[in-house]
Amino acid sequence: MVAIVGSGEDGSQSMELAREMGKLIAQQGWILVTGGRNAGVMKAANAGAKEVEGSLTIGILPFARSTVCPDVDIPICTEMGQARNNVIVLTAEVVIACGVEGPGTASEVALALKNGKPVVLLDPDPAAAEFFTQIGGSRVTVADSPAAALAAARLTMFGP
Amino acid sequence: MVAIVGSGEDGSQSMELAREMGKLIAQQGWILVTGGRNAGVMKAANAGAKEVEGSLTIGILPFARSTVCPDVDIPICTEMGQARNNVIVLTAEVVIACGVEGPGTASEVALALKNGKPVVLLDPDPAAAEFFTQIGGSRVTVADSPAAALAAARLTMFGP
Amino acid sequence: MVAIVGSGEDGSQSMELAREMGKLIAQQGWILVTGGRNAGVMKAANAGAKEVEGSLTIGILPFARSTVCPDVDIPICTEMGQARNNVIVLTAEVVIACGVEGPGTASEVALALKNGKPVVLLDPDPAAAEFFTQIGGSRVTVADSPAAALAAARLTMFGP
Amino acid sequence: MVAIVGSGEDGSQSMELAREMGKLIAQQGWILVTGGRNAGVMKAANAGAKEVEGSLTIGILPFARSTVCPDVDIPICTEMGQARNNVIVLTAEVVIACGVEGPGTASEVALALKNGKPVVLLDPDPAAAEFFTQIGGSRVTVADSPAAALAAARLTMFGP
Repeated sequence: MVAIVGSGEDGSQSMELAREMGKLIAQQGWILVTGGRNAGVMKAANAGAKEVEGSLTIGILPFARSTVCPDVDIPICTEMGQARNNVIVLTAEVVIACGVEGPGTASEVALALKNGKPVVLLDPDPAAAEFFTQIGGSRVTVADSPAAALAAARLTMFGP
Repeated sequence: MVAIVGSGEDGSQSMELAREMGKLIAQQGWILVTGGRNAGVMKAANAGAKEVEGSLTIGILPFARSTVCPDVDIPICTEMGQARNNVIVLTAEVVIACGVEGPGTASEVALALKNGKPVVLLDPDPAAAEFFTQIGGSRVTVADSPAAALAAARLTMFGP
Repeated sequence: MVAIVGSGEDGSQSMELAREMGKLIAQQGWILVTGGRNAGVMKAANAGAKEVEGSLTIGILPFARSTVCPDVDIPICTEMGQARNNVIVLTAEVVIACGVEGPGTASEVALALKNGKPVVLLDPDPAAAEFFTQIGGSRVTVADSPAAALAAARLTMFGP
Repeated sequence: MVAIVGSGEDGSQSMELAREMGKLIAQQGWILVTGGRNAGVMKAANAGAKEVEGSLTIGILPFARSTVCPDVDIPICTEMGQARNNVIVLTAEVVIACGVEGPGTASEVALALKNGKPVVLLDPDPAAAEFFTQIGGSRVTVADSPAAALAAARLTMFGP
């Protein structure tokens, strides 16, 4: 199970990367985990995954009343707001952040590192890359393309 | 109610700043909120606050079995791990981070910003200052001393 | 720290008992913990406690936007809905239920028992008394008056 | 998505019913949700479901370090203790309780009712049946066999 996290805003420049990333994950036969809402990176990643036949997508929603992305196969309703970010990162074996454009994504990356999970930063802003590399050490990989992020995620799960 | 967050490791170089900060907050008659454990910045901030007569300290613990700092007047037991960081920042009106040395503190700063709370970074590493100023905009203030952090916190609560 | 739980509906027949119970707890110098909303048993218990000079009341709110009872000294904002019921019972040393009129209160009593906390049922409906006595064993005491509930709570905390 | 809840103790007399119930749910093509641990009703229900080819089982674990049942296809790690019971009931459309032998199950039934979810009590103790029928009204159905519970669950989801 691999999580894709990122901006919850439609129009985010990371949406196209997220779509490719979701598709690549599904093509490996891995299960995609996201925050489940029908917006931004979550929406794009799930849409990408569902282009692949037989894919499975889990959405861990902040509130029962949140609008769930139609490409989420299994919505998990937490009713716990941003604290659900901790459930996303605990559930995934590796977390891929498509951009780190806002504090929601930053909290997911930080919680993943705090819980000992590997994180791949896909096309991050330089300030995000520097900061998280500094606090996360070898658990953080910076990738400049979905293919590179996939390779990095695979490495964390299966070794070289 | 003002939160002080920071490293949970004893020996953190931010402990002395945290002690001063806790004392200053208590001297204003404000209530101190921390993560409640008997370690690192949490321990130092509570100790500082309890140097002031009549001070009140709240500790929001990650697990029921965590060792609570003896200077916490009111321990709140959440049994929800790092997701309790969201409760800390939601409960406080402003969050003061003493250093941002690790992912736990980074998650608290990010969750505070995500929930619309003002954050004061006290003596942060340059990479942390740059990253959080970039994603948090005007809600983030960088302070180089406890006195400056106090002034910034006061400004966010009461205006100029 | 002692929790009073009960109906969140104004007009509940347990409100008068909750007011007396809150007052009695505050008179012992104990800290009152409730769900913090400005309704039903929560409102009544906090009002009772604040009739006592020097009393301290903690309210553990389900959502940041919930209306907090003005008699709560320290509001803790969890943003986690009914899952906050677990924080209430973990934080208290003993839980006093004023009536068990609905599922919210039933969940609090059950979570308290699951977490090994003693519970006092104050003036419960016979079906509630029978059910919880059956599943809770010696951790459940049934009391027919606030004075009897106080004695039972004292016994669980300090022994005979 | 249908939840089966019940005792987390091996040796529970409800385990055989839970196994049958899990199998019946899977045969409808419904997704099974449980608390995910490798014990008691959770273990039995997942084992029953996995007797059916193509079944899908979700386990919502209280702690990352909990032993997950090998028959759980998708483990969701919450690290939030008993508060995870709220996630189980929010995620399911209907909750089936196999016996209500202890406070953990009682909290799940109560939280389901508090969140407006229908509950089926399968072979409950009379005290549990009386209590929950009293507080839950028409949202509670008592069933004396897995087949009857299935019919009741179907009715709540699809109507007569």
